[in-house]
Amino acid sequence: MTVPNPASPMDLFAQAPDRVSIYEVSPRDGLQNEAVMIPIEGKKRLINSLVNAGLKRIEITSFVSPKWVPQLADAEELASTLKPPPGVTFGALCPNAKGLERALSAGLSEIAVFLSASETHNKMNINKTIDDTLSVFHEIVPPAREKGLAVRAYVSTVWGCPYEGPIDPKKVLSIAKRLIDLGCYQVSLGDTIGVGTPRQTDLIVRMFRDEMPLSRIALHLHDTRGTALSNIVVGLQLGVRDFDSSVAGVGGCPYAPGAAGNVATEDLIYLMNGMGIETGVDLEGVIEAGRVAEEVIGRQLPGKVHKAGAFKLRKARTA
Amino acid sequence: MTVPNPASPMDLFAQAPDRVSIYEVSPRDGLQNEAVMIPIEGKKRLINSLVNAGLKRIEITSFVSPKWVPQLADAEELASTLKPPPGVTFGALCPNAKGLERALSAGLSEIAVFLSASETHNKMNINKTIDDTLSVFHEIVPPAREKGLAVRAYVSTVWGCPYEGPIDPKKVLSIAKRLIDLGCYQVSLGDTIGVGTPRQTDLIVRMFRDEMPLSRIALHLHDTRGTALSNIVVGLQLGVRDFDSSVAGVGGCPYAPGAAGNVATEDLIYLMNGMGIETGVDLEGVIEAGRVAEEVIGRQLPGKVHKAGAFKLRKARTA
Repeated sequence: MTVPNPASPMDLFAQAPDRVSIYEVSPRDGLQNEAVMIPIEGKKRLINSLVNAGLKRIEITSFVSPKWVPQLADAEELASTLKPPPGVTFGALCPNAKGLERALSAGLSEIAVFLSASETHNKMNINKTIDDTLSVFHEIVPPAREKGLAVRAYVSTVWGCPYEGPIDPKKVLSIAKRLIDLGCYQVSLGDTIGVGTPRQTDLIVRMFRDEMPLSRIALHLHDTRGTALSNIVVGLQLGVRDFDSSVAGVGGCPYAPGAAGNVATEDLIYLMNGMGIETGVDLEGVIEAGRVAEEVIGRQLPGKVHKAGAFKLRKARTA
Repeated sequence: MTVPNPASPMDLFAQAPDRVSIYEVSPRDGLQNEAVMIPIEGKKRLINSLVNAGLKRIEITSFVSPKWVPQLADAEELASTLKPPPGVTFGALCPNAKGLERALSAGLSEIAVFLSASETHNKMNINKTIDDTLSVFHEIVPPAREKGLAVRAYVSTVWGCPYEGPIDPKKVLSIAKRLIDLGCYQVSLGDTIGVGTPRQTDLIVRMFRDEMPLSRIALHLHDTRGTALSNIVVGLQLGVRDFDSSVAGVGGCPYAPGAAGNVATEDLIYLMNGMGIETGVDLEGVIEAGRVAEEVIGRQLPGKVHKAGAFKLRKARTA
């Protein structure tokens, strides 16, 4: 057992950043999980509300085949008709050379590639081995960079795979290094099925911290079991400065009522505000975007702060 | 800004306990917030499911006036007809000498007194000043101790008051010391409106840690803004070993759809299991109790792990 009152003055937040960058994924990671396709005007309304809240990096769609993700079949139309204001970047998922071509013709300035740290999950999701997937990335990342695009990468199932269980973090690190060597500016580490807990996050982040600047990684946590913010706090304590989130927590499986998806942007901003960490995002604006997301999607979404609101003083009844 | 890759080998969990104690509050703090009174058979079913899950300390009801909390008007009947098995303690809230009398006649072995750290909230809730409330406790706590009862205390609005805003932690400490001097074995510090964030928790817990053994405090966190588990992780990092929770997160206001109540016991147990911290509670049992809670209460409840389940390997499709 631990000594009850250790005298150590250890500051748990000594290495926490003053400022973090939020990468908003709701229009892509959120809406691709909805049972129906949201009309393009609803998507634009959601994205505009996110821009109004001060979010500067938004993944708006995916150039995967519409056969696989019909919910995002309007990718070209959306990306070519909705342009980011100055200082804002719109990105999109891009699985292959065909996707890159579509992203380029739609005029995007950033794309993201994706694969899984689990062979089985990668096979189920992309129908390729991890090595073969990385080979395909050789056909996307360097050409995209040559055209002036920024390229981000997602590695999924880092905290656990639904088919393989725990994943060796060394394997994740090795994949991440190959992605960075290839030209990706950042690797977003995904807890795809939301199983991660804080000591595991500590282990994973430390392993990366020993090998590369932490600006090379982002944490992309699903809140399926309620642990996302607690993992983010450990990330902050270790100095991570990049976090993915999705307004209102959109991204839960519509076939599992109440199941949570990505960590909710408004909950993340509330946490950061409370900790004095700058995000550049306006909490009231994100709460409003959460309400827009509920309207556009047409159901109650799992994020908490868009329901509870930021803290506001109430007037006491006078006796 | 923080240096990106500090070389510090600081172990964030060096002071975390190997084992924690969970104090289950759903039958009281949960059900008192429901719009309707749950029939006594439903309450017994819920409490039995909690016992079956391995929870050893359960607050089953409240001996406040039925005029104030009609949902718990069956307190005597429940406490006198449902007896804890060996090794399990059933407790109840007890506001005054009349409540103590009722608790004693029902045969309970533990009671809890409660007040607020905010004068305004205390006045609104109990219609007394904090000093007058503590005076009433002089009529309950020593007599209860003389009769062999254990007495716990709740201090609410520690992380913030809906009417006064931030509360000076020194004031909380001063109240807690008076409660312990009076004979309470533990003071449960409440984030009643769920506004707390991790640095604030760090500040509050450290202040207590400088003044008393941490076994004297418990954290009672509402998850209104999704921050409860992240605050609990900071508590663990500082050595806190006592946490209150409510299965399925019951305790949200029924008039605010989707609003979260207490931190959900199953989410807390999942977190502890993932961190290798013993609780003595069976996760599958708590998940089952969460389902019982939803049946008994008749609506979907906010806890996440009772919906998502613990992690289980899935079989991959063979190509």
